[in-house]
Amino acid sequence: MKQTFDVRGGPAIGRENLPTLRAALTSDAIDFFFVPHEDEYQNEYLPDSNERLAWISGFTGSAGSALIGRTEAILFVDGRYTLQARDQVDLDLFQIEGLPDPGPAGWIRTRDLSGRTIAYDPRLVSPKDVAMLANAADQAGASLKALTTNPIDEAWADRPAEPLAPVIPYPIEFAGRSSAEKRADIAKDLREKRVDATIVTAPSSLAWLFNIRGGDVMCTPLPLGRAIVKANGHADLYLATEKVTEDLHIHLGNDVALKPIEALESDLKALTGQSVLLDPTIASAWFFDALEQAGATLIHGQDVCALPKAKKNAAELDGTRAAHIRDGAALTRFLHWLDTHAQSGKVSEIDAVTKLEAFRNETGQLNDLSFETISGAGPNGAIVHYRVSTATNRLLERGSLFLVDSGGQYTDGTTDVTRTVPIGSPSQEMARHYTLVLKGHIAMSAVRFPPGTTGTHLDVLARHALWQAGLDYQHGTGHGVGVYLGVHEGPQRIAKPWNPTPLAPGMIVSNEPGYYKTGAYGIRIENLQTVTEPADIPGGEIAMLGFETLTYAPLSRALIETDLLTDAERAWVDTYHADVLRKISPHVDGTVRHWLEATCAPL
Amino acid sequence: MKQTFDVRGGPAIGRENLPTLRAALTSDAIDFFFVPHEDEYQNEYLPDSNERLAWISGFTGSAGSALIGRTEAILFVDGRYTLQARDQVDLDLFQIEGLPDPGPAGWIRTRDLSGRTIAYDPRLVSPKDVAMLANAADQAGASLKALTTNPIDEAWADRPAEPLAPVIPYPIEFAGRSSAEKRADIAKDLREKRVDATIVTAPSSLAWLFNIRGGDVMCTPLPLGRAIVKANGHADLYLATEKVTEDLHIHLGNDVALKPIEALESDLKALTGQSVLLDPTIASAWFFDALEQAGATLIHGQDVCALPKAKKNAAELDGTRAAHIRDGAALTRFLHWLDTHAQSGKVSEIDAVTKLEAFRNETGQLNDLSFETISGAGPNGAIVHYRVSTATNRLLERGSLFLVDSGGQYTDGTTDVTRTVPIGSPSQEMARHYTLVLKGHIAMSAVRFPPGTTGTHLDVLARHALWQAGLDYQHGTGHGVGVYLGVHEGPQRIAKPWNPTPLAPGMIVSNEPGYYKTGAYGIRIENLQTVTEPADIPGGEIAMLGFETLTYAPLSRALIETDLLTDAERAWVDTYHADVLRKISPHVDGTVRHWLEATCAPL
Repeated sequence: MKQTFDVRGGPAIGRENLPTLRAALTSDAIDFFFVPHEDEYQNEYLPDSNERLAWISGFTGSAGSALIGRTEAILFVDGRYTLQARDQVDLDLFQIEGLPDPGPAGWIRTRDLSGRTIAYDPRLVSPKDVAMLANAADQAGASLKALTTNPIDEAWADRPAEPLAPVIPYPIEFAGRSSAEKRADIAKDLREKRVDATIVTAPSSLAWLFNIRGGDVMCTPLPLGRAIVKANGHADLYLATEKVTEDLHIHLGNDVALKPIEALESDLKALTGQSVLLDPTIASAWFFDALEQAGATLIHGQDVCALPKAKKNAAELDGTRAAHIRDGAALTRFLHWLDTHAQSGKVSEIDAVTKLEAFRNETGQLNDLSFETISGAGPNGAIVHYRVSTATNRLLERGSLFLVDSGGQYTDGTTDVTRTVPIGSPSQEMARHYTLVLKGHIAMSAVRFPPGTTGTHLDVLARHALWQAGLDYQHGTGHGVGVYLGVHEGPQRIAKPWNPTPLAPGMIVSNEPGYYKTGAYGIRIENLQTVTEPADIPGGEIAMLGFETLTYAPLSRALIETDLLTDAERAWVDTYHADVLRKISPHVDGTVRHWLEATCAPL
Repeated sequence: MKQTFDVRGGPAIGRENLPTLRAALTSDAIDFFFVPHEDEYQNEYLPDSNERLAWISGFTGSAGSALIGRTEAILFVDGRYTLQARDQVDLDLFQIEGLPDPGPAGWIRTRDLSGRTIAYDPRLVSPKDVAMLANAADQAGASLKALTTNPIDEAWADRPAEPLAPVIPYPIEFAGRSSAEKRADIAKDLREKRVDATIVTAPSSLAWLFNIRGGDVMCTPLPLGRAIVKANGHADLYLATEKVTEDLHIHLGNDVALKPIEALESDLKALTGQSVLLDPTIASAWFFDALEQAGATLIHGQDVCALPKAKKNAAELDGTRAAHIRDGAALTRFLHWLDTHAQSGKVSEIDAVTKLEAFRNETGQLNDLSFETISGAGPNGAIVHYRVSTATNRLLERGSLFLVDSGGQYTDGTTDVTRTVPIGSPSQEMARHYTLVLKGHIAMSAVRFPPGTTGTHLDVLARHALWQAGLDYQHGTGHGVGVYLGVHEGPQRIAKPWNPTPLAPGMIVSNEPGYYKTGAYGIRIENLQTVTEPADIPGGEIAMLGFETLTYAPLSRALIETDLLTDAERAWVDTYHADVLRKISPHVDGTVRHWLEATCAPL
């Protein structure tokens, strides 16, 4: 069993660790220490050794930061996490403030902190955030100080060891292109940009560029490490030596120099006089400082691996399609099990997670979950980032909705799918809300759009039906997805905040509108889809992009109010269900197939 | 008659003026001189004295720039103007390049210009553009030089005089709020932003803030001038002394110091030690340079008048509604005239402009056109920025479409409306295209949306039906509109490029999707609409914003393919036409009323 249900975080943690850190700050003459959630690698999932914000506060959300002062301690979280933060931190010790407003910079700016020192760890903070903090400190009369060691790492007595999972080659049959080809393309790109070198700081880019995978964080096969890639085609790959296998040496060949991660700093300092491209959105201030000290010319630009990694090639798409059929069959078995067992009212959220993981595991090809399954019964379904623990576990009750958002990591692809299932008979209101969400999902699935269109342009299509009914959902509509890599991958995204990356053929995005009735139920319908090549439309002038659906698993027909659908929407559902039946039924046994046939019959 | 039909620009102009300017550059040791279309005031319409790009090149488009070298001359224009540029400049003397790619900076960057001097007039260029030019010059090995006098102004022998139209008070009954109240709000805003002063550099903001209007440029009652507004509530208003009337003195009272425009520079230089807010998107580098020399602290921020000016108050909206009924009646008389006369095939584009202006003029309240009427018959309708001249004038032929985009400036409001009319019987294809555009227009009219939504979020709604048919239009969907001010006003906009300004109650925007078949016809349907207050929707949770239509004039029912409309879309057309009939028929005579009744009957 991969998923655990332990209670994480909590007020006792901050109560224990805050005095330890404060003693260290006092002896170092630091008045405030800035603690971001992000680690050195800007990962979504942190290794336990980098859970610094949780260590100091007890707060375990996926975003946030803290300012720890000698007497004050402020935790900054966004609206999604306000309730969770109140539960997990000691409110006598911590004050909770909003993100991004005021955020740490806003909080500092409006105070008189004359003569005080605010410190940060430049390995964890982006240059943009450093600039914001510096500006705010300036207005408050304080000084901002970059530290060479992190006081939390010093104060943390039983800090877990750094992860050292072996780094293994990723087979060409799934990668589609050799690392040598990819590196040649990146080198050409650097020459066209007239820069001498770039630093690959993101582990997912490292994994893509060198066709390698690791196991340093949960749910994503990332190898923590860095690389320097030069315009002449040479590459240095920096990894902890314990992670390097003989296979890896053979895989990388002679054109890549494998070096211990400790050698990175001195190699950066040897880039004197060279122009070096760095992505200021993912590389921390530490890199900028090191290169400036080296006398390198810093060029700001997007991670050169980001776009080629996002545009999947034919082999990657074939692998992803295969993974989705396999995963869809497991999910279908689960949905059938749910339909036949959950009516008893005795199935719990944890039972559901356990059963679903078992079905995925029975494929014999599950390497990991792609994230911790969100298993939300009734009111828990309305908590967008819900994680079930032994403390929150609920039974799936008759007359309620159950939301299950899950995915698997297979060597050939990464899946992410959400279905919302009625337990017993749904109310008319539930069905109306489900159908409004479905209308948005269909609009985002069926849309054709011209080259240059970004996810921000399309986002409203998934919300339009809900908006007209006075409803909305407070999360993005779609995120990029990797191939046996991160289930959340940039640079493309379908969401309200501006994303400038045009959707391009081969990109994978989720399509996941939802509706959440606080205290009652949550609804989300999520498939993954890939952007198709531009194609002519009869009578049209512009070859339009579109989407190919990747996820195949039945929708909840009992929740569909056919009267609210247009003819075209109804036809979309019938076609999708016919595809589900055709693709999934060969992979499930007779009982499930029989159930699937009924579930996938035309509306 | 306000509109003229003379042929503007042309290759002879550049042929004549280029040698004159080059002689001046040579004697000043300048290798390249940068000539933007924008003038000192970043106006949409320039006074004749500031048409520097047209003077040097013969190109009269509304956007572009040039780099004039000793032997080379490069004109940069965007895709809308490529054809016009080829017609208007001498291609033996000028090379035409794209905007924004490569643009002047991109062109410079990729050349070896070692030891050369590139000069610019800092009064005409934004700090951002200066930074881009400086960076490009650096890469090319050239040096960038700010000039204190503009070589074109020196070389331009018969340069027209600067406009000196009297500046007059704008009555409180239309403005809704007194200048004193507005200035108190702005001063409060400055105090909240903790800045000492701001420079109002945009004439439209000057007009709004002081409740004044002028006549220095065509189609917009702008007073060219500047102001310094302080956080203590004091304001200095800088105008050419010739424009100041006794009425203006009385109107402004004692709290505003009226000063000659020549005093601005020394007053800026007296702001030593003060924090001064400037909008880097509309204030030229000259202001930043002057304030830096003065030792002021520069704070970058949006023009503090921009948002309060955009959010119209009740009096402004009432005036605008009244102006639209008046203007709609004039347009309706014109559409009736067209319907009864144009079938002859003998009406020309110029005839149409003349007749429409006559109808507007007969209201007795037309102060000016709000822009030059776009009167496009057949293929001319497909030219988005078409201006009819004696050289391009076409007859409205049977079997063609006629596109007319026009508006008036009335003391109580500014109008902007586009109708597309079939001359004789339209083809099935024309009707299908018109109906697809209409579906987009209806979607943008009927949408409800939550607070925080920007025009970029909504833009796709107007394009969706066209996209699904393989079609699109290469312009924005909607622009902001002033009240007896600019017909194009920010900061809000409905368009693909990211606009961060949330649509807010009282803002006026156009809704103008289109379709253009090159060489055949153009279709555009444009109404103005204002954002309504948030209001509950039965069964909903979020009070949603929406739009109230301002423009009332009949659509072309012969172009509507009812089979392509949903029931809701058909109901929208019928309701709109019923409103047109109700609002306009009291203001037209019997014959027109009779025609309007037939035109506005349910589909």
